[in-house]
Amino acid sequence: MREYRNSILEAELSAGTGPLVGDPSVVGAVEAALREFFESRRDMVASVGGGYPETVTTLEQFVLRGGKRVRPAFAWTGWLGAGGDPAATEAHAVLRACAALELVQACALIHDDIIDSSRTRRGYPTVHVEFADRHGRNGWTGDAGQYGTNVAILLGDLALAWADDMVRESGLPHAAATRLAPVWSAMRTEVLGGQLLDIGDEARGAETVESAMRINRYKTAAYTIERPLHIGAALAGADSELIDAYRRFGADVGIAFQLRDDLLGVFGDPDVTGKPSGDDLREGKRTVLLAVALERADAESPDAAALLRRSIGTRLTETDVVTLRTVITDLGAVADVERRIDALTADGLDALDTSSATPAAKATLRQMADAATRRTS
Amino acid sequence: MREYRNSILEAELSAGTGPLVGDPSVVGAVEAALREFFESRRDMVASVGGGYPETVTTLEQFVLRGGKRVRPAFAWTGWLGAGGDPAATEAHAVLRACAALELVQACALIHDDIIDSSRTRRGYPTVHVEFADRHGRNGWTGDAGQYGTNVAILLGDLALAWADDMVRESGLPHAAATRLAPVWSAMRTEVLGGQLLDIGDEARGAETVESAMRINRYKTAAYTIERPLHIGAALAGADSELIDAYRRFGADVGIAFQLRDDLLGVFGDPDVTGKPSGDDLREGKRTVLLAVALERADAESPDAAALLRRSIGTRLTETDVVTLRTVITDLGAVADVERRIDALTADGLDALDTSSATPAAKATLRQMADAATRRTS
Repeated sequence: MREYRNSILEAELSAGTGPLVGDPSVVGAVEAALREFFESRRDMVASVGGGYPETVTTLEQFVLRGGKRVRPAFAWTGWLGAGGDPAATEAHAVLRACAALELVQACALIHDDIIDSSRTRRGYPTVHVEFADRHGRNGWTGDAGQYGTNVAILLGDLALAWADDMVRESGLPHAAATRLAPVWSAMRTEVLGGQLLDIGDEARGAETVESAMRINRYKTAAYTIERPLHIGAALAGADSELIDAYRRFGADVGIAFQLRDDLLGVFGDPDVTGKPSGDDLREGKRTVLLAVALERADAESPDAAALLRRSIGTRLTETDVVTLRTVITDLGAVADVERRIDALTADGLDALDTSSATPAAKATLRQMADAATRRTS
Repeated sequence: MREYRNSILEAELSAGTGPLVGDPSVVGAVEAALREFFESRRDMVASVGGGYPETVTTLEQFVLRGGKRVRPAFAWTGWLGAGGDPAATEAHAVLRACAALELVQACALIHDDIIDSSRTRRGYPTVHVEFADRHGRNGWTGDAGQYGTNVAILLGDLALAWADDMVRESGLPHAAATRLAPVWSAMRTEVLGGQLLDIGDEARGAETVESAMRINRYKTAAYTIERPLHIGAALAGADSELIDAYRRFGADVGIAFQLRDDLLGVFGDPDVTGKPSGDDLREGKRTVLLAVALERADAESPDAAALLRRSIGTRLTETDVVTLRTVITDLGAVADVERRIDALTADGLDALDTSSATPAAKATLRQMADAATRRTS
């Protein structure tokens, strides 16, 4: 249903030129750490027995078969940029703690796919659909859809519990683990808050710029860039100046990334984005773009406001979409959002440039900011 | 729907004479620790803003307004029994870590109530029903039931994440936290395994004694008694002999508790249990009692086997229930389960008696074992 919105949680921050965050080998190292963690759970799961090992295998496949590992890569880049030494003895523990972000993300995706009634994820059936299908294929008792949802709720819980286990067993020095704790805690509390606000605003039909920006901040920016960078900095024992710079960069560029996503959701070329044109309009996504358009329409053009309110979130023809695009553009909403993207990106880059991050990390993060905010897909 | 089964997760281990596990003041202390923890999250939640603080208040009320605090009480008793000193400086940290079990339990209950489509919990609407009702009262957009479920999924996640935060911020000495970690990890992995096996067995129509016993072990015994006692022992730095004794006691008495529950679910007096007579038969609960009856019927009486299979889990009249009770009793299944309860309780008490636990802890745990396995409600 709202497949597109999910892609934001998944945040594919590339521009067709390969991974942009840190060394591509980070992806391989993160996946090796995740594989090693699942291996470490094998005995405990086997001791429970029954069908548990098989069910857990589905979680393992879900975690290992896709994703750009964006959050671990930001955390790792944040650590390197704060002076972390990949040749140091603690580097492997840091990598494991960064990789644990993928288990938090597994829970977020599995539960979000239930919430959004999404049917596919990374080219495969979503977890709840996979288990509903298994139920159907085997002709089991009860409602297949309910069964799939129930298994997916519990497997998401397991991923979340294991994320904590993975951090705890990462082998981090005590001082680093202590510095990490409050950031790890904030990140999870914030992303769950962002998700709760999102479904709450959707239900209430909230349409202010402020509420859309708040969701962008906590559901996307803080969770995807700001806190992962902060985690890396905390693990390296960075000073508060660098942490503040990372956080400003992460919040600003993360929101700019989301605003670019909003524009692509209405104006993107389907051949490039791989998503139907005007998808966000049909889904009634409460974006900043739409909020700005409504705010301007209310002030300047009651007809445009009425048209937007009665069209958004309904079955729209291609012609309807073209009309709505013109209305949104003519209201100045596109230019407004483009200005916000530019200002946020400039602020974020400014915070980064004047920080004490290493030149290599600055280069990586600058490249990422550019790709995230200027991309066409 | 399956309200009764839920009560096992909630495990009201009392016999009408007040709390039996440890000092009644433990309940008050646990609730104070939980209140203090929620207070400590206030700023972080407020900084996200929007409707987040209000939503979190519902979680706080859910956690604080009921429950016997059975798991924290077992953990605390386990700690005392292993020589923990309530006057020691670390006692408050231990209490906080024990209280965190209630946040794991909050997640388990909130998500289990979705899974079981339960409408009430502790005399109030379940969390998903509460939010669905709010949606309806406010005339919001979209499906009220789906909204309620979605909020409850995320609030359960938050409780699970916060359980870890509460342990991490409990102030435990590093050595105690290190000893706790693997037990805490095992407990969560086991209970989620038990829940997954339960819904898997229900879907597959599993009916063996072995599979029902496995669910009793991991969903009830390990989660409610065995691991909480183990957690207390680990926090106190107990030796492996005492840990083994606690675990044997917890697993045996925990399963015996569940078997007693199974008998009450079929033979309990509605005036005493407060639940409709023969509830488990109508719900088709896959208990050890039923598995034993089916095993015996398959060996001795094909007619009884056929009757059981076509009746269980259907709309049964009072007369049907009386007939099924007679069949189950005549097959010798009740006597079989009573023998299992006796043997498990004896084994558990034997492990406890010969252990190095303090006399006070032994007395408390013995009293609890008696109440849990001989109760009538």
